[in-house]
Amino acid sequence: MGEHMISIDEFKKVEMRVGEIKSAEPVEGSEKLLRLRVDFGDEERQVISGIKKHVDPASIVGKKFAFATNLEPRDIMGLQRLSFLVAVGGAAETPFAILEAPAAQPGARVR
Amino acid sequence: MGEHMISIDEFKKVEMRVGEIKSAEPVEGSEKLLRLRVDFGDEERQVISGIKKHVDPASIVGKKFAFATNLEPRDIMGLQRLSFLVAVGGAAETPFAILEAPAAQPGARVR
Repeated sequence: MGEHMISIDEFKKVEMRVGEIKSAEPVEGSEKLLRLRVDFGDEERQVISGIKKHVDPASIVGKKFAFATNLEPRDIMGLQRLSFLVAVGGAAETPFAILEAPAAQPGARVR
Repeated sequence: MGEHMISIDEFKKVEMRVGEIKSAEPVEGSEKLLRLRVDFGDEERQVISGIKKHVDPASIVGKKFAFATNLEPRDIMGLQRLSFLVAVGGAAETPFAILEAPAAQPGARVR
């Protein structure tokens, strides 16, 4: 743990914000992907996330999770991903979990 | 939002893990600081965090939160901080919230 130390400035380069899931639906032709519509307070974004095997889409609507919001955009199956849902686990022995912030305000920045 | 884009490699430099709070107590002589003992699965760490005004220490014991675990160590009031509790808000208009991972395993890495 903590093999490669970083400075506080490197940590601050990563912008993470709380987003509220407005809708979640399967991406056609994919076994892994969900297309999320996410409210960040002053902006709504589409997020494509490989969590379909781990969650029931209906169960995450209305919930507030952590997202990385300044990663270079990337196209996934022709859909643009502007933000990235932050999660842990999902491998064989580690249970999957999303980082939740039930009491937070959409758009609030992680620090 | 997302003014300064970063690469996925820059994102991956930040090591964040889930830790379970084993104990939380006020730091003597400080109005802001709590001294936390945190279980990261293979390792237990002391975390000094300025959250005293926002939470009741007893209410966070046993809970699992996100921590940045590879920031350069820093001394705060003579106590070494090896990891950093990740949170949002706490300013005037934004409610304070910690990133929770109730279903996660201590030590699980955020990705």
